Amino acid sequence: MALQSQPRIKEARLKSLLKGINRFGHNAQSGGFNRIGFSDEDMAARQWLAEQMRAEGLAVHWDAAANVCGRYGPPDWPCVMIGSHLDTVPEGGPLDGALGVAAAFESLLALRDSGLALTHPVEVIATSEEEGRFGGMLGSQALAGLVTLAWLKQARDAEGERLWDAMEAQGFDPRRIADARRPEGSIRLFLELHIEQGPVLEHTGDAIGIVDRISGMISWSVRLTGRSNHAGTTPMDLRADAFAGLAEIATAIPGIIRTHGTKSSRITIGKVQLHPNFPHSVPGQADFSVILRDDQAAVIDRLCAVLRDSIAGLCRKHGLTSEITPRSELAPVALDPQIAAVLCEEAGALGLTHRVMSSGAGHDAQMLQALCPAGLVFIPSRGGVSHAPEEWTPWPRILDGARLLLKTVTRFATSPGAK
Amino acid sequence: MALQSQPRIKEARLKSLLKGINRFGHNAQSGGFNRIGFSDEDMAARQWLAEQMRAEGLAVHWDAAANVCGRYGPPDWPCVMIGSHLDTVPEGGPLDGALGVAAAFESLLALRDSGLALTHPVEVIATSEEEGRFGGMLGSQALAGLVTLAWLKQARDAEGERLWDAMEAQGFDPRRIADARRPEGSIRLFLELHIEQGPVLEHTGDAIGIVDRISGMISWSVRLTGRSNHAGTTPMDLRADAFAGLAEIATAIPGIIRTHGTKSSRITIGKVQLHPNFPHSVPGQADFSVILRDDQAAVIDRLCAVLRDSIAGLCRKHGLTSEITPRSELAPVALDPQIAAVLCEEAGALGLTHRVMSSGAGHDAQMLQALCPAGLVFIPSRGGVSHAPEEWTPWPRILDGARLLLKTVTRFATSPGAK
Repeated sequence: MALQSQPRIKEARLKSLLKGINRFGHNAQSGGFNRIGFSDEDMAARQWLAEQMRAEGLAVHWDAAANVCGRYGPPDWPCVMIGSHLDTVPEGGPLDGALGVAAAFESLLALRDSGLALTHPVEVIATSEEEGRFGGMLGSQALAGLVTLAWLKQARDAEGERLWDAMEAQGFDPRRIADARRPEGSIRLFLELHIEQGPVLEHTGDAIGIVDRISGMISWSVRLTGRSNHAGTTPMDLRADAFAGLAEIATAIPGIIRTHGTKSSRITIGKVQLHPNFPHSVPGQADFSVILRDDQAAVIDRLCAVLRDSIAGLCRKHGLTSEITPRSELAPVALDPQIAAVLCEEAGALGLTHRVMSSGAGHDAQMLQALCPAGLVFIPSRGGVSHAPEEWTPWPRILDGARLLLKTVTRFATSPGAK
Repeated sequence: MALQSQPRIKEARLKSLLKGINRFGHNAQSGGFNRIGFSDEDMAARQWLAEQMRAEGLAVHWDAAANVCGRYGPPDWPCVMIGSHLDTVPEGGPLDGALGVAAAFESLLALRDSGLALTHPVEVIATSEEEGRFGGMLGSQALAGLVTLAWLKQARDAEGERLWDAMEAQGFDPRRIADARRPEGSIRLFLELHIEQGPVLEHTGDAIGIVDRISGMISWSVRLTGRSNHAGTTPMDLRADAFAGLAEIATAIPGIIRTHGTKSSRITIGKVQLHPNFPHSVPGQADFSVILRDDQAAVIDRLCAVLRDSIAGLCRKHGLTSEITPRSELAPVALDPQIAAVLCEEAGALGLTHRVMSSGAGHDAQMLQALCPAGLVFIPSRGGVSHAPEEWTPWPRILDGARLLLKTVTRFATSPGAK
């Protein structure tokens, strides 16, 4: 027992791991990181990570979905899986995904170094294509057996490149995607540490967010059609101004959420294209995106219905027609409540202020929840910024998150549990 | 006196003149007309018109601004000038400008054919670059002495081509622009027939619009700056959404006009560009155009002040900053009230229902009003459409306008007046 000690995060090693990952795909000019799913940079970072895992004596495994895994501990028991994704958006920040992988690796090393006897193996995972070049969360969906060959065959990126070809080009056989599926019961639980990517924790001053639900999402493309006319000669009351209609729809959104939504409701009009888009012409057409989110399916349904009614009513008022094309839909997911309760307990034991919150963004944990109990820990994002080079979290806050991850992993990996 | 008769518009000749002009720059595929100012097609149409004028025995004159003029009647008296522009917007319609030139030419020929003795010469003019490739109304501004060499030297089209070079390429010497200026008192009055380019006459059912005022215009570029953030993770109340601000500004416009404007007020947001313009990002920046018009300067000033206040207030509400860049400004112009009264009288004598109205679009008449009394007659535009191949007016309505033009020209060209 003399060799045993409470496992401790080594700050220098964690920094070195994060720096190691971020050597790949760094754009020195912009400060951005570019490890797009299945790009050479993404693959090089995975190779490097696998080498580090091997050097530390872990059992390394690449699966058919390009997930990279490193395992330590007693064989033949359900593992405690920890990690996040290694890929980035174009010109992304230094933390998103990479920090979760580095903190998971460091937690495993800290637990190993402590000499504590493990009842369950710990597996660090760097998941693939989470960010959505081809749709997103490919690695975690493959682990949970949610990827079909039919879907895989038709998936393309924004430039039209096929996922199938991108996988083959990197030496993966997409026909074997089902091999990545983990057997039922083989994972005791999955834990992910991630930056919040939003402003809530910074705003409330909490060190930790413990995610109980992940919002679902509805994505629409909407077209309003009116009449384009000369902006000088057409009186205001004889116009069918597609932008005037869109503006009133957008202005109605806060009231719709106030009346029919919750504090996790978000309705965003992020993309707008007018036609002819000329200063001296009344806009005859307005195309725009709607992204609607909430963490409860019933609320999403209600908000969609009210927004459809609002669009129809305001189109009548402005003499417009509307066409709503649903683009994609993702159901909200409840993460495991017992894991969330343990995370709250351990955060309290560490003296960390924390809040239970829902996540407005999607994460691998929501896919793995289909396979095993999953938990997700947030740390604050400076200024709420994410997917940009300016993305950052101060090191003391990063260490808070890593310590909570380590403490929780330690609890589950050193306690009895069903085989 | 036996040879004298009431002058009458010959429908076939008017149609043939219009058809003759529209042979130039016609895009058979789209149906659009392309005689962009100082293009080869524009110049070819002018050459053709000059030949027709010569063939009819008119004294033809090209001036330094590319205006083409044909004169008939007693020399040395102030002329009755009639006409419009020959240039078009890209893919314009068959009537805009061309009809006013054809109807003026036909009116002169009808008056000549009648054998009535003229007290004043009649001059038909096809003005140049009215539509705005290089700013617009170049020909009429040159006649009124409103074009400076300094302005001429810096004017460029949207592709960056210099007006100076475009004039030289067509054989005009821009240094001599001042030669196009007409002496004070050399024009008894100017009359222009034009399609309304708006829906008012069709809506009221009037055959004729007699324009008393031409709206002034203020053009702004506005930038709203907020914070671009992840649309999933950023709660509604922690956003600085530039599009939400713009939408509320646009929604406030009808109320602003109701409270502070007139029936000639128009405020148009025709062009919008969001950044990053991505469905999953809260818009951090919104750039948009504002075109504000009214036929009274005081109303324009008031509307600008109220709109500025509204933008500032709504930016405060949404956590945005705003930057308003004035792009151009055109003062409203009152046309000659005596000519308008004569036009009303003659329209009544012809049994044509008519309304006195302001013009929301700019016209050569407003520039010539600086030099001589000017009048402007509108005929209905089908569906209010203009600047498009679908632009049209039924022939009976075109003939109403041509007859009113002829009757009014006849009155001024056969009555005594100061030399």
